[in-house]
Amino acid sequence: MTRAGILNVTGYAGSELARLLSGHPEVELVAVTGRSAAGRRLVDVFPHLWQLDLPVADSLDAAAVDVVLSALPHAAAAEQLVPYVGAGVPVIDLSADFRLKRVDEYERHYAVTHPAPQLLARAVFGLPELHHDEIANSRLVAAPGCHSTAVILALAPAFAAGLIEPDVIADTKTGLSGAGRGLGLNVHFPEADESVAPYGLDGHRHLPEMTQELAALAEAPAPSITFVPHYIPMTRGILSTCYGRPRGRLASMAPAAARVELRRAYDDFYAGAPFVRVSDVPPATKHVAGTNFALVHPSIDLETGRVVVACAIDNLGKGAAGAAVQCLNLMLGLPETTGLRQSALFP
Amino acid sequence: MTRAGILNVTGYAGSELARLLSGHPEVELVAVTGRSAAGRRLVDVFPHLWQLDLPVADSLDAAAVDVVLSALPHAAAAEQLVPYVGAGVPVIDLSADFRLKRVDEYERHYAVTHPAPQLLARAVFGLPELHHDEIANSRLVAAPGCHSTAVILALAPAFAAGLIEPDVIADTKTGLSGAGRGLGLNVHFPEADESVAPYGLDGHRHLPEMTQELAALAEAPAPSITFVPHYIPMTRGILSTCYGRPRGRLASMAPAAARVELRRAYDDFYAGAPFVRVSDVPPATKHVAGTNFALVHPSIDLETGRVVVACAIDNLGKGAAGAAVQCLNLMLGLPETTGLRQSALFP
Amino acid sequence: MTRAGILNVTGYAGSELARLLSGHPEVELVAVTGRSAAGRRLVDVFPHLWQLDLPVADSLDAAAVDVVLSALPHAAAAEQLVPYVGAGVPVIDLSADFRLKRVDEYERHYAVTHPAPQLLARAVFGLPELHHDEIANSRLVAAPGCHSTAVILALAPAFAAGLIEPDVIADTKTGLSGAGRGLGLNVHFPEADESVAPYGLDGHRHLPEMTQELAALAEAPAPSITFVPHYIPMTRGILSTCYGRPRGRLASMAPAAARVELRRAYDDFYAGAPFVRVSDVPPATKHVAGTNFALVHPSIDLETGRVVVACAIDNLGKGAAGAAVQCLNLMLGLPETTGLRQSALFP
Amino acid sequence: MTRAGILNVTGYAGSELARLLSGHPEVELVAVTGRSAAGRRLVDVFPHLWQLDLPVADSLDAAAVDVVLSALPHAAAAEQLVPYVGAGVPVIDLSADFRLKRVDEYERHYAVTHPAPQLLARAVFGLPELHHDEIANSRLVAAPGCHSTAVILALAPAFAAGLIEPDVIADTKTGLSGAGRGLGLNVHFPEADESVAPYGLDGHRHLPEMTQELAALAEAPAPSITFVPHYIPMTRGILSTCYGRPRGRLASMAPAAARVELRRAYDDFYAGAPFVRVSDVPPATKHVAGTNFALVHPSIDLETGRVVVACAIDNLGKGAAGAAVQCLNLMLGLPETTGLRQSALFP
Repeated sequence: MTRAGILNVTGYAGSELARLLSGHPEVELVAVTGRSAAGRRLVDVFPHLWQLDLPVADSLDAAAVDVVLSALPHAAAAEQLVPYVGAGVPVIDLSADFRLKRVDEYERHYAVTHPAPQLLARAVFGLPELHHDEIANSRLVAAPGCHSTAVILALAPAFAAGLIEPDVIADTKTGLSGAGRGLGLNVHFPEADESVAPYGLDGHRHLPEMTQELAALAEAPAPSITFVPHYIPMTRGILSTCYGRPRGRLASMAPAAARVELRRAYDDFYAGAPFVRVSDVPPATKHVAGTNFALVHPSIDLETGRVVVACAIDNLGKGAAGAAVQCLNLMLGLPETTGLRQSALFP
Repeated sequence: MTRAGILNVTGYAGSELARLLSGHPEVELVAVTGRSAAGRRLVDVFPHLWQLDLPVADSLDAAAVDVVLSALPHAAAAEQLVPYVGAGVPVIDLSADFRLKRVDEYERHYAVTHPAPQLLARAVFGLPELHHDEIANSRLVAAPGCHSTAVILALAPAFAAGLIEPDVIADTKTGLSGAGRGLGLNVHFPEADESVAPYGLDGHRHLPEMTQELAALAEAPAPSITFVPHYIPMTRGILSTCYGRPRGRLASMAPAAARVELRRAYDDFYAGAPFVRVSDVPPATKHVAGTNFALVHPSIDLETGRVVVACAIDNLGKGAAGAAVQCLNLMLGLPETTGLRQSALFP
Repeated sequence: MTRAGILNVTGYAGSELARLLSGHPEVELVAVTGRSAAGRRLVDVFPHLWQLDLPVADSLDAAAVDVVLSALPHAAAAEQLVPYVGAGVPVIDLSADFRLKRVDEYERHYAVTHPAPQLLARAVFGLPELHHDEIANSRLVAAPGCHSTAVILALAPAFAAGLIEPDVIADTKTGLSGAGRGLGLNVHFPEADESVAPYGLDGHRHLPEMTQELAALAEAPAPSITFVPHYIPMTRGILSTCYGRPRGRLASMAPAAARVELRRAYDDFYAGAPFVRVSDVPPATKHVAGTNFALVHPSIDLETGRVVVACAIDNLGKGAAGAAVQCLNLMLGLPETTGLRQSALFP
Repeated sequence: MTRAGILNVTGYAGSELARLLSGHPEVELVAVTGRSAAGRRLVDVFPHLWQLDLPVADSLDAAAVDVVLSALPHAAAAEQLVPYVGAGVPVIDLSADFRLKRVDEYERHYAVTHPAPQLLARAVFGLPELHHDEIANSRLVAAPGCHSTAVILALAPAFAAGLIEPDVIADTKTGLSGAGRGLGLNVHFPEADESVAPYGLDGHRHLPEMTQELAALAEAPAPSITFVPHYIPMTRGILSTCYGRPRGRLASMAPAAARVELRRAYDDFYAGAPFVRVSDVPPATKHVAGTNFALVHPSIDLETGRVVVACAIDNLGKGAAGAAVQCLNLMLGLPETTGLRQSALFP
């Protein structure tokens, strides 16, 4: 059994990591940290984790674990992960610190000095559907942002096949666990319930990582993404609906034929991806709740010929902790799906 | 007091009409019909309307009312409204039957023969923000579809001012009362709750009326709208987020300046509209729940320069029954806001 | 027009008072206070109140208003209301400060020294269904707690008619606006959504006022109430389900006959109460959302003969701000229903 | 691997059985039936089960399976299960057909003639916390009703220890998946959302099985239960709050001491029960969502001395499919928790 530790278990990504690892047949969760809850038992913080009899510690000794999963916030993550990387402990980080290749992009969007820019070169973007082998060979993986995963999975096949123009819209609807466990009026039940609103209209931090990853797949010029997230009154799930104009051979096809062609590109792209299902019907987030699966539905608007692709994931699953465990499996040389095959909790 | 009758009170648009008219100081609701509930008391169908002591009738005598509001489904509406129009009774219809100017468009999208094409020429599209005086002078008004109202209010000022290119995306999130009172698994609580999915990807019937109304405002070529609605787990409210490229003088401005310019166009366009508030912040549907108000927030994406406009309404209020009462006020020569000034039910 | 002021408009009871007064034909809301928001416009705190163009002030001059409605928390309320009472301004207080007749009870349950015990003798418990004339003649009215209103309305007729034994259970289900606008994990959307739990098992502060009011109606011995509230995942509404054993003539009747007898007692008790409807069917909170109405459904369990009465109200309506406006109407000599006749927002 | 078949997979209990068995390490789901969906693929009925590549059949051959789990409705279940029982195939039935020992009770409450009364004698009530060894030795197990499980688990220790008087109240709050997959206005999202109401006030079919099971544990006289269920706006979960008067030694204790005594009885009773956790805090359904666990919180009302016990389960988990799989494990001689140890999906 591989011994795993979680840094900052007290948020939703951290507790979801604990939940997933508690059912993992090849990994044992041996330690968790959480500053605000240090000294308490995990079950007192999260009653649903009462099968995990663990104390919440203040810190984690690198020698006590074979792998570290970090749910620390950005900047704190990079700072605290340096010793583990230095000690040769494999690390999976759920923050944004190691996602962007360019330190200037990071520093512009996050408005902090990067605490460990020297590690960026060895970090791999933790989306196995794009970087399967690099992840398997890496010791520092950066799990993507939840919005990014949904948008990239929606658009990667189209960009890779040259079937979409660079100007795209990504309109994302996200459950409120995406806002985290920190309190605020926008997540206060009476105000969030029965309401929907856009946010991040002045720029969202997940945008540069979407652009970086899709640009690496696309023909020039680089994708130009207008990304607008919306909070909707539910707990888990992201649906990203993406829009663009057809390119290349797709642009000259009638809509019905274009649908077939587009679908084929998606089927091909995800042929070996065990967690992505190209769906015949519009995807619903409820069909992936609690899982690491993604549903992707590519289509062509029959009226305008536009490309419309919707992708549904669980923001805490494939959008965070699930992806981290999927990467962990690859890094450990395990089958990619180990411990991640549960069906969604439906209804 | 003007005597009003409602045809087909048993759906959500019909019952919302009854609710609004029950509080209207100049209109008395004297009769309601509803085939499925004929013979019952209204309070037995809708316990929340117990202050309205009315029987649900099978039919409505034109002589018994001064105005008819119809919540009948399309085709049935046109068929049953002919006698009232013939008798000179003012009619407000909430179906799609009298919204489209072109009968061929109607017949293509609704797959029925129009039962009363001869009435189309005298019908007015019931959006007072665009057709204030025509509505006041009309005796046959077609209240717009709920999605259409949100999309048109979001985009009309930009098109009217020549500030947006014709290719636009309208991504709409709607509460489940928009699916009506008819039963179905997609509105079954356990399956609709905690989920979001797109629908209508093969074409939605509200598209032609949006296009018709925006085309009448816009410079050539006509708007080309990709419209994708989504059901989200709440009861009331529509948020439409619309995307397009800047045009004309807007296209050459820096994003910050473009925001100011765009905002000015919206302020001007809605200067005399008592039910539209151009908002400084992203609009939330909860802030208009139960009302006839619309919140519109025009913006420019700072990264890409794209125009992004969000509009929030209550789908049963400004999106249906509220708009009908607003038109009724105009037709009766009353102040537009009579009986419609309630603040939203928040939280 | 009577000039009204609201103290502490920034919570849900305060904002609901503002919403109701904005539609009141005989009262003008002229001033609002709120420490945390002092200096801002009301619309910036509550976008849904944009029709009320008012600043949020730090304090309220007694000379500027004809009546004061206070949504201040307990202790602060009594302290700050003394000057208004002294100046002869009629006051309606939504806190617990003037509900209990016995200052020792108050001080035991609220763990504070009562700031103005000298005012208790002149205060009236603001439930018009029990104290109609006293309220009309009072200048200091204490609006009841939301749970108390539901439980008292459910049980008052049975106790008044001697039809129920003193040992009763009140199991209450309340929407999360009942927890107020203060932030906390128990009202954090991701944790409150899709969950139900009891709270207050060590004692709830609304218990003594329920007992006081029901004891005043009941034959000896005084009612002994086990009161357990539960938060459920919705915003507005309280349903209280109350259980007891039949007493007197009811105890010897067969269940079906007992149902008729019990119903008659409720019909009689509420014959003159415009806001209470004795319902033939189990009441749903949605049928009173946004209103000052109460639905009460008395029944007899056919298996055990027990009395079971359910009462549904809107916790912010009849449970708080609506009741305050109802009392205000009585104090001003207006018809009790002035400004309060809107039907519920359904669906 | 044991080969299992599910009869009537198309409801929520059936699909939850399929979900649980798909992750069971010792059981392979080899066949499913469902009249309404016969001939379709399971994934087309339930997209969340796409990992189970199974056709929905019209019938199930007894020779093809080692065990049958039935989610058929009552009466149909008994009728269709006779051949499997006759063929010696172990059967777990989720309907009410084999729960009640007395056929007259069954026929009175279900208003049908029992199709197979000859099987009642060999059937075991499938609550392992009460009938562990009998289940292990049985070939016909009747999984309890969801409400019954919550109420019995809440009250069994108190009755078994003689600590509660026979007159008890069980007030249950249930998510809407409890209403099943059949359509109806009471489960229609716009009407169920944001509302709570009691139902079953004329008698609920789960009552006799609660009474039967608790009577078998209790000292005479038999428990007399007033049971009132309520639908609340969430999908999964039941919380039952049960009330009674203390008996025996508990009745003479001060409330604080009584709490300790009561807690000890619960700890003792559930000492060997892997799926019941006696909780220090009021239980929330969210902490057991998707699992076979139950949280039980016994308490004493400090004001009145009454016994108050709350129990939270997932109605589709411990309340239906989870319990069935727990019984299946016992019948197969497997550890009771096999395939059932997942932590709850929180948040």
